[in-house]
Amino acid sequence: MSNQTPIDGVPGDGRSLSITMARLAAIVGDRATSAPGVRSDHGRSEAYHAASPPDVVVFPETTAEVQAIVALCRELNLPIVPFGAGTSLEGNAAALHGGVCLDMGRMNKVIEVHPEDMDVRVQPGVTRKQLNAYLRDTGLFFPIDPGADASIGGMTSTRASGTMAVRYGTMKDNVLSLEVVLPDGRAIRTAQRARKSAAGYDLTRLFTGAEGTLGVITEITLKLHPQPEAISSAVCAFPDLQAAVNTAIALIQSGVPVARVELLDAVMMRGMNLHSKLGLPEVPHLFFEFHGSQAYVGEQAETAQAIAADFGGQGFQWATSPEERSRLWHARENTLYAGLALRPGAKAMITDVCVPISRLAECLDATSADIAESGLIAPVVGHVGDGNFHLLVLIKPDDGEELQRAKAFNDRLIRRAIALEGTCTGEHGVGVGKMDFLPLELGDAVDVMRLLKEAIDPASIMNPGKIFRARPPVEGDAS
Amino acid sequence: MSNQTPIDGVPGDGRSLSITMARLAAIVGDRATSAPGVRSDHGRSEAYHAASPPDVVVFPETTAEVQAIVALCRELNLPIVPFGAGTSLEGNAAALHGGVCLDMGRMNKVIEVHPEDMDVRVQPGVTRKQLNAYLRDTGLFFPIDPGADASIGGMTSTRASGTMAVRYGTMKDNVLSLEVVLPDGRAIRTAQRARKSAAGYDLTRLFTGAEGTLGVITEITLKLHPQPEAISSAVCAFPDLQAAVNTAIALIQSGVPVARVELLDAVMMRGMNLHSKLGLPEVPHLFFEFHGSQAYVGEQAETAQAIAADFGGQGFQWATSPEERSRLWHARENTLYAGLALRPGAKAMITDVCVPISRLAECLDATSADIAESGLIAPVVGHVGDGNFHLLVLIKPDDGEELQRAKAFNDRLIRRAIALEGTCTGEHGVGVGKMDFLPLELGDAVDVMRLLKEAIDPASIMNPGKIFRARPPVEGDAS
Repeated sequence: MSNQTPIDGVPGDGRSLSITMARLAAIVGDRATSAPGVRSDHGRSEAYHAASPPDVVVFPETTAEVQAIVALCRELNLPIVPFGAGTSLEGNAAALHGGVCLDMGRMNKVIEVHPEDMDVRVQPGVTRKQLNAYLRDTGLFFPIDPGADASIGGMTSTRASGTMAVRYGTMKDNVLSLEVVLPDGRAIRTAQRARKSAAGYDLTRLFTGAEGTLGVITEITLKLHPQPEAISSAVCAFPDLQAAVNTAIALIQSGVPVARVELLDAVMMRGMNLHSKLGLPEVPHLFFEFHGSQAYVGEQAETAQAIAADFGGQGFQWATSPEERSRLWHARENTLYAGLALRPGAKAMITDVCVPISRLAECLDATSADIAESGLIAPVVGHVGDGNFHLLVLIKPDDGEELQRAKAFNDRLIRRAIALEGTCTGEHGVGVGKMDFLPLELGDAVDVMRLLKEAIDPASIMNPGKIFRARPPVEGDAS
Repeated sequence: MSNQTPIDGVPGDGRSLSITMARLAAIVGDRATSAPGVRSDHGRSEAYHAASPPDVVVFPETTAEVQAIVALCRELNLPIVPFGAGTSLEGNAAALHGGVCLDMGRMNKVIEVHPEDMDVRVQPGVTRKQLNAYLRDTGLFFPIDPGADASIGGMTSTRASGTMAVRYGTMKDNVLSLEVVLPDGRAIRTAQRARKSAAGYDLTRLFTGAEGTLGVITEITLKLHPQPEAISSAVCAFPDLQAAVNTAIALIQSGVPVARVELLDAVMMRGMNLHSKLGLPEVPHLFFEFHGSQAYVGEQAETAQAIAADFGGQGFQWATSPEERSRLWHARENTLYAGLALRPGAKAMITDVCVPISRLAECLDATSADIAESGLIAPVVGHVGDGNFHLLVLIKPDDGEELQRAKAFNDRLIRRAIALEGTCTGEHGVGVGKMDFLPLELGDAVDVMRLLKEAIDPASIMNPGKIFRARPPVEGDAS
């Protein structure tokens, strides 16, 4: 189905859009719409991928409503695309085959906090910033920070991570339990609320990162962490990328539980100077953050300073005041805009490979050479403690040749990362953007994934066409 | 098949044991045996469950051999039971339906260590002590400590954890990637070696904790951790269990990254005094261990001491010398023998529930009352930071009535834990012992597990009859 024929495109045994809408209205009242503006809003993403609007957008408010909608879609053979904050980067929530978009934005309640157990149960539409604002007075916080104010449901579905994963892990490490509506309309809970369990297959991890292809997540129980007594930040310049990477490796090996260690290359520093007036030298930098007691935070920063000096780090600056820290990390949070400042009017294709940290410098050097040869502008920002880095490949939206050049560059980058024992996606997920690289990375393991998909979603109604080319749910044309 | 008819019991289209042995010999030479002694060794476990010996024991040395054996078993429709160090506690490796036991003990090589990446690739037969001995000079260690010197393959398969999980996580958090031989004989790798990935379904976590019911693990890549610069231990007495639990809760909430915090009840302390001559008061105790820099370890112990004092803790003793530490933790490691010292000639039925830590005191109190009413002797040892605790229910091996009383007690304990949002198994796995409680705990989620099992192992040859009552692979009698 193309974007031009949304009504004809509604799949499902020849039933018309109006019948579908009437059936949905019986479940959610006026919270189902086929208005072009709403559909189009749900077909876009922050990425460079083409828009793919759904035919209908529904705004459920309860698990029971989600169950009824899913059962209806199963009956009518309609694709279901769960949708969070719309901040995914690989077309993860694009409605490739039309169908029903489940906008989870109204399921945004924090259900209960258990301070003694350091966990919280939330609906999927809660965003990470909303959650942390809610938690402020509990002494606890939720550390996963992918940059954007993503929804917890979306972050769970893409196995998100971000700047603090080096210390606190990724979503995989911080989801305790899920409530999931299966493609047959049943709701299951994947685990009890105990901190750990060896009770059968780890369904929590199976649905975490499944990108909505196995079911709809309707509740998430998350681990929380104590707000650190003290936080300090530091910044340090390096002669080259290798020196910065070696510093990060030695720091982690030293046992310092660094909370954040972010790599920014010379090009990115130029953008950050332009956008955030940082006034720092335009050479590779590491930004650090340390969490702990007052004394321990100081000790960590001193260790980092000594290690950085060993590798030729210069101008180590250490900030403990909230204002100074916030200036630094605000600049880091805005690397997308910093990148765009390097080429006004451009759009960013954001890459996302992750390699063993011992191969990171090699991967970065080869990639820098490739950028230079390709004639692209592409600043680097990396979660260097995990070996995960992004390039913002700055492209003019209307320049088809440049887009092709950027895609070819990304293709080479991914193959390079995989050859270095790395992955095609550290944290953005597969979506449509990485689908063709998954078999290259994991071989026959992708067949096992496909078996699981077919077992749980035999009609392939759940977010079809993501992760791997699942057969479309529509008998006829789905192009 | 019963233990009395091992040869008739070999399943597989009426083929005889001799044909099976000949086919196996073509793959592994003389490393396949049906000798009664070897079979019997592989049918026993450390637990109270009845013995279930396999018909044949094979000792593969390579992944290729495992592939050939699995393909043969698939062809002959023979059950396959992977076997590690034989230290599992819920009959996880019992050959309920006979068949072929794969003893992985000869696949015990440490394949490669990557110090910069802090990871190691091992064969499944490597034990955790063997691994740590190998790592001693690298500055790294593998922290998961389930007590027994279990094999890494077995620990992966049961999602083991133990005393240091409160700081370093469980096997789920420390396995980076697996090589698995599928029931169709293909070998897959579940992930690359990058520290994190969002590349499709989390197959690593699916096979971790699957207890050999989905495939045979032939290689494990593990995360390692820096050996701490300093370690200190502490011990503290408490007026009651509630005070000890509250201390653990407050300590964790304070942000102290305690490496171990173990609860021992008054009965267990009596056993430890008997067995290890500890000379400590016979009241509830917490044993602590702290890891970090010299200064930070001191700070952590001081914080713990202050918190313990708030809850009425007395006689806080802090040990930094290796000898003192080792005395304390050696005693802790020997709680099984300490328990047995309370009732010479007894065997221990080891329970394994885990509840949210806020419900732990309640669960322990109700359980103490239940022990008293049941007339059982059952000391408690708990990984209190995770809400996981064990009772060693001391039973006379030949007293059928007492065994029934102990089983009935365990049954009530499990139902109590589940009612308190807990799990029937914190770390020992389901095996056969917890199979009937899984649906009680997870409801329809168990149906999803079954779907996954049937998708990956349609002939049900992989460790049949574990986790849930999978249909046996044999057409005829398998009783």
